[in-house]
Amino acid sequence: MDRSLEDLFADVAAGRLSVSEGADRVRRLGLTSVGDFACLDVTRAARKGVPEVVFAEGKTVEQVVAITQRFLEHDAVVLCSRVSDQQAVALAAEVDGAVEHDPRSRVVVVRRAGAERREERGAVGVLAAGTSDVAIAVEAVAMIRAMDVRALTAFDVGVAGLHRLSGPLAEMEEAGVGALVVAAGMEGALPSVVAGLAAVPVIGLPTSTGYGFGGRGEAALMGMLQSCSPGLAVVNIDNGIGAGATAALIARAASS
Amino acid sequence: MDRSLEDLFADVAAGRLSVSEGADRVRRLGLTSVGDFACLDVTRAARKGVPEVVFAEGKTVEQVVAITQRFLEHDAVVLCSRVSDQQAVALAAEVDGAVEHDPRSRVVVVRRAGAERREERGAVGVLAAGTSDVAIAVEAVAMIRAMDVRALTAFDVGVAGLHRLSGPLAEMEEAGVGALVVAAGMEGALPSVVAGLAAVPVIGLPTSTGYGFGGRGEAALMGMLQSCSPGLAVVNIDNGIGAGATAALIARAASS
Amino acid sequence: MDRSLEDLFADVAAGRLSVSEGADRVRRLGLTSVGDFACLDVTRAARKGVPEVVFAEGKTVEQVVAITQRFLEHDAVVLCSRVSDQQAVALAAEVDGAVEHDPRSRVVVVRRAGAERREERGAVGVLAAGTSDVAIAVEAVAMIRAMDVRALTAFDVGVAGLHRLSGPLAEMEEAGVGALVVAAGMEGALPSVVAGLAAVPVIGLPTSTGYGFGGRGEAALMGMLQSCSPGLAVVNIDNGIGAGATAALIARAASS
Amino acid sequence: MDRSLEDLFADVAAGRLSVSEGADRVRRLGLTSVGDFACLDVTRAARKGVPEVVFAEGKTVEQVVAITQRFLEHDAVVLCSRVSDQQAVALAAEVDGAVEHDPRSRVVVVRRAGAERREERGAVGVLAAGTSDVAIAVEAVAMIRAMDVRALTAFDVGVAGLHRLSGPLAEMEEAGVGALVVAAGMEGALPSVVAGLAAVPVIGLPTSTGYGFGGRGEAALMGMLQSCSPGLAVVNIDNGIGAGATAALIARAASS
Amino acid sequence: MDRSLEDLFADVAAGRLSVSEGADRVRRLGLTSVGDFACLDVTRAARKGVPEVVFAEGKTVEQVVAITQRFLEHDAVVLCSRVSDQQAVALAAEVDGAVEHDPRSRVVVVRRAGAERREERGAVGVLAAGTSDVAIAVEAVAMIRAMDVRALTAFDVGVAGLHRLSGPLAEMEEAGVGALVVAAGMEGALPSVVAGLAAVPVIGLPTSTGYGFGGRGEAALMGMLQSCSPGLAVVNIDNGIGAGATAALIARAASS
Amino acid sequence: MDRSLEDLFADVAAGRLSVSEGADRVRRLGLTSVGDFACLDVTRAARKGVPEVVFAEGKTVEQVVAITQRFLEHDAVVLCSRVSDQQAVALAAEVDGAVEHDPRSRVVVVRRAGAERREERGAVGVLAAGTSDVAIAVEAVAMIRAMDVRALTAFDVGVAGLHRLSGPLAEMEEAGVGALVVAAGMEGALPSVVAGLAAVPVIGLPTSTGYGFGGRGEAALMGMLQSCSPGLAVVNIDNGIGAGATAALIARAASS
Amino acid sequence: MDRSLEDLFADVAAGRLSVSEGADRVRRLGLTSVGDFACLDVTRAARKGVPEVVFAEGKTVEQVVAITQRFLEHDAVVLCSRVSDQQAVALAAEVDGAVEHDPRSRVVVVRRAGAERREERGAVGVLAAGTSDVAIAVEAVAMIRAMDVRALTAFDVGVAGLHRLSGPLAEMEEAGVGALVVAAGMEGALPSVVAGLAAVPVIGLPTSTGYGFGGRGEAALMGMLQSCSPGLAVVNIDNGIGAGATAALIARAASS
Amino acid sequence: MDRSLEDLFADVAAGRLSVSEGADRVRRLGLTSVGDFACLDVTRAARKGVPEVVFAEGKTVEQVVAITQRFLEHDAVVLCSRVSDQQAVALAAEVDGAVEHDPRSRVVVVRRAGAERREERGAVGVLAAGTSDVAIAVEAVAMIRAMDVRALTAFDVGVAGLHRLSGPLAEMEEAGVGALVVAAGMEGALPSVVAGLAAVPVIGLPTSTGYGFGGRGEAALMGMLQSCSPGLAVVNIDNGIGAGATAALIARAASS
Repeated sequence: MDRSLEDLFADVAAGRLSVSEGADRVRRLGLTSVGDFACLDVTRAARKGVPEVVFAEGKTVEQVVAITQRFLEHDAVVLCSRVSDQQAVALAAEVDGAVEHDPRSRVVVVRRAGAERREERGAVGVLAAGTSDVAIAVEAVAMIRAMDVRALTAFDVGVAGLHRLSGPLAEMEEAGVGALVVAAGMEGALPSVVAGLAAVPVIGLPTSTGYGFGGRGEAALMGMLQSCSPGLAVVNIDNGIGAGATAALIARAASS
Repeated sequence: MDRSLEDLFADVAAGRLSVSEGADRVRRLGLTSVGDFACLDVTRAARKGVPEVVFAEGKTVEQVVAITQRFLEHDAVVLCSRVSDQQAVALAAEVDGAVEHDPRSRVVVVRRAGAERREERGAVGVLAAGTSDVAIAVEAVAMIRAMDVRALTAFDVGVAGLHRLSGPLAEMEEAGVGALVVAAGMEGALPSVVAGLAAVPVIGLPTSTGYGFGGRGEAALMGMLQSCSPGLAVVNIDNGIGAGATAALIARAASS
Repeated sequence: MDRSLEDLFADVAAGRLSVSEGADRVRRLGLTSVGDFACLDVTRAARKGVPEVVFAEGKTVEQVVAITQRFLEHDAVVLCSRVSDQQAVALAAEVDGAVEHDPRSRVVVVRRAGAERREERGAVGVLAAGTSDVAIAVEAVAMIRAMDVRALTAFDVGVAGLHRLSGPLAEMEEAGVGALVVAAGMEGALPSVVAGLAAVPVIGLPTSTGYGFGGRGEAALMGMLQSCSPGLAVVNIDNGIGAGATAALIARAASS
Repeated sequence: MDRSLEDLFADVAAGRLSVSEGADRVRRLGLTSVGDFACLDVTRAARKGVPEVVFAEGKTVEQVVAITQRFLEHDAVVLCSRVSDQQAVALAAEVDGAVEHDPRSRVVVVRRAGAERREERGAVGVLAAGTSDVAIAVEAVAMIRAMDVRALTAFDVGVAGLHRLSGPLAEMEEAGVGALVVAAGMEGALPSVVAGLAAVPVIGLPTSTGYGFGGRGEAALMGMLQSCSPGLAVVNIDNGIGAGATAALIARAASS
Repeated sequence: MDRSLEDLFADVAAGRLSVSEGADRVRRLGLTSVGDFACLDVTRAARKGVPEVVFAEGKTVEQVVAITQRFLEHDAVVLCSRVSDQQAVALAAEVDGAVEHDPRSRVVVVRRAGAERREERGAVGVLAAGTSDVAIAVEAVAMIRAMDVRALTAFDVGVAGLHRLSGPLAEMEEAGVGALVVAAGMEGALPSVVAGLAAVPVIGLPTSTGYGFGGRGEAALMGMLQSCSPGLAVVNIDNGIGAGATAALIARAASS
Repeated sequence: MDRSLEDLFADVAAGRLSVSEGADRVRRLGLTSVGDFACLDVTRAARKGVPEVVFAEGKTVEQVVAITQRFLEHDAVVLCSRVSDQQAVALAAEVDGAVEHDPRSRVVVVRRAGAERREERGAVGVLAAGTSDVAIAVEAVAMIRAMDVRALTAFDVGVAGLHRLSGPLAEMEEAGVGALVVAAGMEGALPSVVAGLAAVPVIGLPTSTGYGFGGRGEAALMGMLQSCSPGLAVVNIDNGIGAGATAALIARAASS
Repeated sequence: MDRSLEDLFADVAAGRLSVSEGADRVRRLGLTSVGDFACLDVTRAARKGVPEVVFAEGKTVEQVVAITQRFLEHDAVVLCSRVSDQQAVALAAEVDGAVEHDPRSRVVVVRRAGAERREERGAVGVLAAGTSDVAIAVEAVAMIRAMDVRALTAFDVGVAGLHRLSGPLAEMEEAGVGALVVAAGMEGALPSVVAGLAAVPVIGLPTSTGYGFGGRGEAALMGMLQSCSPGLAVVNIDNGIGAGATAALIARAASS
Repeated sequence: MDRSLEDLFADVAAGRLSVSEGADRVRRLGLTSVGDFACLDVTRAARKGVPEVVFAEGKTVEQVVAITQRFLEHDAVVLCSRVSDQQAVALAAEVDGAVEHDPRSRVVVVRRAGAERREERGAVGVLAAGTSDVAIAVEAVAMIRAMDVRALTAFDVGVAGLHRLSGPLAEMEEAGVGALVVAAGMEGALPSVVAGLAAVPVIGLPTSTGYGFGGRGEAALMGMLQSCSPGLAVVNIDNGIGAGATAALIARAASS
């Protein structure tokens, strides 16, 4: 279709098509072709630098591989989340590129053959309140690293009380993190506390850890939304991918 | 902007711009101008024939008038819903066109000066289960008529039992309605019953009539969504405008 | 019972029963016999042309077969949804008629032996936002085809951005679809976008794809209900059958 | 329409219409006339003995009067609930019959001129947990009495602890109540306690008394639904009318 | 403890205790002994005639047998609901009495050895809207029969449209049912329809049949609670036991 | 009824009644008299030392005065909550006793004429996170003081960050509080933080301060319920009375 | 870090650091070290006497063992809840201390080698409404005993009616319990009844026992929150650990 | 307290206090003084540069003025949100500083007398989908400007279709915005669309604009949380302040 835009102008330039006919055809493109949209999108994808994500849960092995390959035609890096072992094996075997599988986060990162890793730019700190929140937190880490941003982690800050928090936080600030991702389930208080202490924006990542009333992440989500701590925004329950992408975007801009 | 598309081709035709430069400029239009989208939209609006709607509740008198006038630059008919008396008076005084105000539905229909009413095409039957549902049902009627579709009404079908239903329904079928809008609050059973009896598609219109648990329209909405009656689709609680627009689109197509 | 209505009139015609006695008996029919209702229903079923549906999930193999056979006494086509492989095998083996099983949609369509397929009349376009929505979208397709309406599909429109949308949509409009079914989970934005672009009515079909807060289809349902796009009505979460039936009814009427 | 049924048979009897034609016309009645339904309904209304109810809230004074008058054409007693003072005055002035207004329950009972009160048959006990529940409880009382059933009341049983309960309950049982209505807000425990003590069926009537989480009657409704006390069924929050009607039906049958 | 009440009076009669001392001791009984309560309870249980129910789900085989045996010390009939096959086998083997197991309802009824079945008194009609509602409806039937009340059933009334309803309903009315239990899932409309047609009280029994929004019985429950049909009260979702007990109490009283 | 218990024993003592007849009569008392329950209750009320509470909102001035006077017959102290100015004036004018009105908490405490204030025993600390939570916190204070327990308050601990917390908390611990009431709206984090720092039990008191999703106290309630801090239990949203009563009971026991 | 505080003062004492430099360093400690927080925490943990809890569900065997060992470095007693058999076996094998496993409550209590059990101080009564609530109630018991508080239990109080309640309650009061934990599912009425009878504070413990609407503990939680019984506070659904800890804290204080 | 830290070290330096005694006192500071926390907080506030916010709704005029003055002792800029006209007048009259009142956003910004506005650093784009969302969007603008960040606005992008979007978006990108705030009610689709087009992080700001099911902002919030657009995080419904603060933090960092 990119070709047809050039063809169209060539036809007008050559007098094979009138000026008004050319303008009309462009107007009709919106409904007759994907071209004008597609080119914009590709431009944007390159600028934004967030890899496409394949949510693997509920898809067949074949679907995950096929979609990943389709993305790789346009993108250098594709990230597959909630990947089963079987899906990970198939990706490694069938996709043409470098495949990294992190079983803890159930994320597979695929780099197109020949696509080089860019230099790291910026840093994000990722904290998790409890052991049960780690699986989601590492999903954020995987996304951050796939975006060529450095990730610093502190995963046991809630295990033995808030006193474990200040040390890692200070280290992260010294390392120049541009944003923080804070994963927490239960009442979800940690992101609010961190946003009250840290100077950088915080992405609250509620997890579905908890029990009883509000225990599937609703209490954590609600609490983060009600927080008055400045500089705290949230993503959906268990959305480590989204938290990581937003934090990495922020950190990258802050480091430039 | 429409002009600049012509200008652009003229420049290419005249050799003032290269073919690839012309193509590039069109690609950039997506983010630098509203033109390509706008022309599509105007085309579509004309084809679809659904008037733009100004939701007046929560807007100032000035805002309602200004937005209506802006729409009238492109559209022959504009519909204002949930209009206060004061807003209706202002519209009648300040807008250049024919202004009809129906206090029962709180709808104002504005036709641009000089815009003629088209001939009616197709018909929709509008039923209301109870007296309290009428205010919402007539909102649907106003939209249907603004779309130049005939509206037949039967508003007391639920007052004294379902036996009041078959007469009006038969009349509507004989009149050749292409769709039915059925407004109901409480448990919202009427649309399901009607969809079981009538041969044409039914738009269920839940209203916020009711009390206690589920009484603000949730029970009516839920019940309509759970119904197995064939040919029933629903709109949001109290969304008479949306129900009318969809039903009129269906009826118009069926009458052609 | 059909016979008894004839008998009743014959008795009055023959003077074996008085006129007022005849009238009284008809009045009492409502509670003493299914006859008057039943005949209406059969008439309506024929006119409406929506096949009866057997929701197979949670029923035994025997129940599914028995109910299907009962329906086939009156109806030429019966559709079984959410069918297990075992149920599908039993239907193929035990029901007297042509049995088509589509494993992707888990739908079995049974045509009574001797019942001929009618000519297709009208067309519906079915779109799915993502790979995970396809299973529900094909349920709609199965119903549309069982109603002898043509179904056009485009199932990867959301995979790589909205730019994939305009091509298929233009094709569908050119093919003369009278209605669109748009399946989407997550935030359910696609039906709203399509209803803003297309000239025909759109049936929004929310799917239970998603995660976290609102992730079992509630966000998709809510979003579609809140949409202001003209000509959009919705069915319940994952109700492909209902979406297909309504869209096919609309398309058939529009094509006549 | 009743006449046309007689006419129909007369035509068949006179040979002006064939037998099969007569039967066909009856079959078509379902959709072309309200007659066959209407006669059944009127019969049923008479047998069931529950007066029609006009829910006055949200209706204009004119609407309430008009609907009441329409009902009075067929029914001897009509009950208007949630009546404003203005509506009550209008009913007293304009309706032809005996009008009783009970400001506490906001119920107006209208008996058609000439319609005599029937002898009381059966008795219902009505209890309220707290002072705030009384307004709803007396709505039930109004309905019970309008159905010519005796109503015994005990309205302060929850004011000073459950010890106030056993006295009134024993009195009611001695008076031979056939059913009990028990109104309660907050956690709604009283109906459960009463159903555990009393030998007759109990209708739980949750009221919108309460505060905080579940305080608009949801906690009361939920608690009554979860109760294991034998012989307890519930109506919607604040639905005194429905509770009274059901209890009176039970009591009347038990007394015969 | 019964003995100590006699002892207490004997002591006062013998002058071993003063009158006021005797009265004081009775007052203190509430907190020091179960005796006075227990005797009331036993009296009531006998009068009310609702068997004790053991909810077997989530209990071990041993627990179910032990609780059943404990109840049988005081009660002639005990009903176990949601019984697994293993629990049913154990009850049959270990409990001293007549054990009936109905696998469809998963109810076991145990009659103490020597306890004779009383003559049936009264009748209840039990209807189910769809095949999926039958499992819950038969739970109600089991309770009704355990209370020595006759149960009439009609379980396919919703399978092929409402026209299947009037026949069974008329039969049930002729058989003199004193109450109806109507089980329905989905939008739960059947109880409302039945309550509009039948002269006797109706117990609405919402079932967890359905799908999507409100599909675990909430839509059915809400719809029944919002219904205006006179004489309809409801029990919790899937609570066949409670519906049966209430209906049987009503029917028994009506038959005396 | 108290008299009849004495009479009963007197009759047995005098031989006018047999011993078994006397015992039987006591057993029947449960349903024929309030006496045995009442005496227990009065005993308990005295022991427990929690004043009766009149929830004034939604009651008429007359009702509030009448109920208060009834309670004063048995209790030395009665507390009226959510009192309007008009109700407070009426109580002061018409009730025989000492009436204290605290406009901030909208609580009126009435001490029966002649009833002396007992010496304070134990102490409770009451904290509020923000200015908006104070109205509810002082309701707790009023109850605590009415129970003759000392109340220490710190109401601006959340205004300028958590650093305002440790000072008051240390003071309260030094003053020997036996329990803490912590009122908080929004995300409701303060009670959890306090329970992590303090050695005494904490009663979390969620308030309806907040906005948006979960903003009417649900987020605060959920967060407190999800908290893992040891020694934290909660009451309903805005239930200052209940929080105060529980904390005072704890503190009184701890001080003895 | 404790060392560095000493070092810091030593440096100032020795003149190696100025006074203001020393003060500044302490001020910076908040963000550069965990020391000041940690020492407070350890002090508090010792004073409060609530053991740390490891929520084992959703953690690997290795994680449970590792976290438990980490806690044992500072705490004499650690409690693991929701423990699988496999986790329990691993704890017994790998942790250095006395390990008690109670399969009914799925709690493992670990006492550090050499840590002696302290003398019991205070007593708590634990009641359960039904057999299904026992698993949660014994979790509370395990926590109470781990805190060296005596636990009295009565677990079948709801099996055969409330009359089973008064005996155990009286016994518990005589034994001097300082608090009660009352576990109940369904409508959750028992804690409210107990709080109305008992003189000591009651911790309501809602359990996820129930069915249908509100049946996963929401009805129980809501009912307890709405209760007006004085001295009742609640914990989250199925949070036996929290209920036990709060009750034991109260009881211990009351016994001193 | 700052002084006492110096005093403490001076005492140790002078030998008036031992080293270990000094260390112990610091450890105890956590519970006996606000000093160590306070100093950290003040440092952080200065670094973070987010002004303190007084939520004026529900506070008295006196409270708003007093809290504002207290904050001004430490902070140069204080922002009051949801301010009534009366509160704004009082602030202007009584507070010592420059008071700007923006009636549209109901925000008052107070700068301490003598505090100079800093130079603008960074820029944020603020978009609103509809006229009704503007009031919330301008709250975000007020916060952004109070943080000395430039705010660009485009408030009618949703009035006449998405084609109004690309122009302003391109302008904002050219102006170098570091973040976008996108306010939307109804189905809340705009932030998702913008995040798909723009290269910078987007803060979704759901507003309580809408109607029917999900119409108080829940649908908008849910939709934004479910969105897959990269780089989108959200704040609570109507939380313009929070959205502005987060976006300004991001933009400021990106501009350095």
